[in-house]
Amino acid sequence: MFENTTRTELSQLGEFGLIKHLTEHITLHNSSTIKGVGDDAAVIEQSGKFTLLSTDMLVEGVHFDLTYVPLKHLGYKAIAVNVSDICAMNGTARQITVSIAVSNRFSIEAVEELYGGMLMACDKYKVDLVGGDTTTSLSGLVIGLSVLGEADKADVVYRSGAQEKDLLVVTGDLGGAYMGLQILEREKAVYKENPNVQPDLEGNDYILERQLKPEARVDIIPLLKSLDVKPTSMIDISDGLASEILHICQQSNVGCNLYEDKIPMDSMTVGRAHEFKLDPTICALSGGEDYELLFTINQKDFDKVKNHPDFTVIGHITDKACGANMITRSSSSIELTAQGWDAFIKK
Amino acid sequence: MFENTTRTELSQLGEFGLIKHLTEHITLHNSSTIKGVGDDAAVIEQSGKFTLLSTDMLVEGVHFDLTYVPLKHLGYKAIAVNVSDICAMNGTARQITVSIAVSNRFSIEAVEELYGGMLMACDKYKVDLVGGDTTTSLSGLVIGLSVLGEADKADVVYRSGAQEKDLLVVTGDLGGAYMGLQILEREKAVYKENPNVQPDLEGNDYILERQLKPEARVDIIPLLKSLDVKPTSMIDISDGLASEILHICQQSNVGCNLYEDKIPMDSMTVGRAHEFKLDPTICALSGGEDYELLFTINQKDFDKVKNHPDFTVIGHITDKACGANMITRSSSSIELTAQGWDAFIKK
Repeated sequence: MFENTTRTELSQLGEFGLIKHLTEHITLHNSSTIKGVGDDAAVIEQSGKFTLLSTDMLVEGVHFDLTYVPLKHLGYKAIAVNVSDICAMNGTARQITVSIAVSNRFSIEAVEELYGGMLMACDKYKVDLVGGDTTTSLSGLVIGLSVLGEADKADVVYRSGAQEKDLLVVTGDLGGAYMGLQILEREKAVYKENPNVQPDLEGNDYILERQLKPEARVDIIPLLKSLDVKPTSMIDISDGLASEILHICQQSNVGCNLYEDKIPMDSMTVGRAHEFKLDPTICALSGGEDYELLFTINQKDFDKVKNHPDFTVIGHITDKACGANMITRSSSSIELTAQGWDAFIKK
Repeated sequence: MFENTTRTELSQLGEFGLIKHLTEHITLHNSSTIKGVGDDAAVIEQSGKFTLLSTDMLVEGVHFDLTYVPLKHLGYKAIAVNVSDICAMNGTARQITVSIAVSNRFSIEAVEELYGGMLMACDKYKVDLVGGDTTTSLSGLVIGLSVLGEADKADVVYRSGAQEKDLLVVTGDLGGAYMGLQILEREKAVYKENPNVQPDLEGNDYILERQLKPEARVDIIPLLKSLDVKPTSMIDISDGLASEILHICQQSNVGCNLYEDKIPMDSMTVGRAHEFKLDPTICALSGGEDYELLFTINQKDFDKVKNHPDFTVIGHITDKACGANMITRSSSSIELTAQGWDAFIKK
């Protein structure tokens, strides 16, 4: 009974376009809502403290492939990824709710495995699973999560605070989760051709773990505090370095220079990328799922983070008019785009 | 790669059984978590106030049928239902997050309709849509919602506080949403046989609205406050009166007597039930989706609610040993069961 005269395909807008389109008419009613849509988490004021709320939906066949992702790992990752969103606000995750829709393809034991992984992550991150919903789906598994965190008012960091001349800093190393995925996809293809061949995963432990069991960087929040560094902006790396840098630049109304040779990558990631004939830099820029933190700091804080094994300074913030660029190893400047792969435009 | 030696079908446990099974191993880490799984919402302490958090997942083909539910109504209902969970804790909903997974069967205009309905409900209930996730699904529409509310510490009402001799009270009337669904299902069947026949929905406005556009009873919270009544327990009616009474009895460790002749029903609901050869009482007990509030009060508060048009006293709480029973019009006692329909056991 639902009819509409015009029909515009979802693909015409893309995810970010659709979200922007749908959320532009939102009006806020409560003075306690400090920040609504548009950051890693919403910010709600309550008796002088800030409550952080983030939500996520994971769909089988879109976000995960159960032919090579064990359910326990999937459960663990689902929690870690949501905790990471609270870290990206410089807060501490406290409570989480989990809704799942499962088809009768799944047994109780399978759902137990999934929950087992979730509870393992809850223990690790000291987060309380406080609610949820369990329902039937007609096909496949869908997981919905919401996480609640807290932060002192003065501590919350948004995507929008980056200033010209700030330094762009990233934790850990990048591209590993993406290369882990390539290994898993390769072995899936081999298995499909010949189910008797054992998967060859040896020697890839680090990148497989980056893909299958990523950790939220909860350690970074107290570390920054102890170093007396409050980032001017912050985001977690779920979609790839390029996409996250663009979020910060757009929301802070600034440009940036990212230096290709500074992007931290593990030697295993680089090695496997070459084997797969992939450019390691592209893996870091567009691969995503590393769940490291990307943030900007005032130059005065440089001494506090330099040479720290957890941090790498990878660039700096510029005027908006300069755009968001990567300075390549050969010193040319390339405009960053969220799509990566084929979408780089030489200037 | 996921294998398990035993396989137990999900249907063996049912939804409530599965939730109980999965959540029994949860340990809580944060002293701010006052109440986790097991009520209409989780309760989290923050600087002397209580934050309420509830979550829900709606799956196409399981929770809604788009052949007769307009997307705008679906969006409205999704918000109302979640706001209702916060009402059931005697709190006020403030913020909400919405995640949707949509297949490419849906156009942007269709998703706009859905959001339009959601924003209409947000305006009505003065709730802020503060975040969400938009993703692809391989088939159908899945909506995940989380709602955040607040309440003074002293005001929060759990399912577990009912005491012997308390009165059982319900708001509004029951069974209407279920009879509305029967009308829609009938017209769908007619339409399937002959798509040229116009749906015959006339004269059913009230029950159709109960099904398609239910309202959360946000008005009851300040009303109870103004009457100086704090319920001893409360729940909202999503699954049917019988199921909700059993939740209160089980969690409060009590029994109850429900009087069949006291159950408030609209004359249209009763009339249509008879046309469909359904027992109106069964529609109220097992139909669900009325989103009225069911609560218990101390007998001393009886004078404050009696003869109030919004409230009907439908029974009283007894000792647990007496069980949860309905006293029929013919004065026999029937044990209440959550399943309804065929599952009544004569004592």
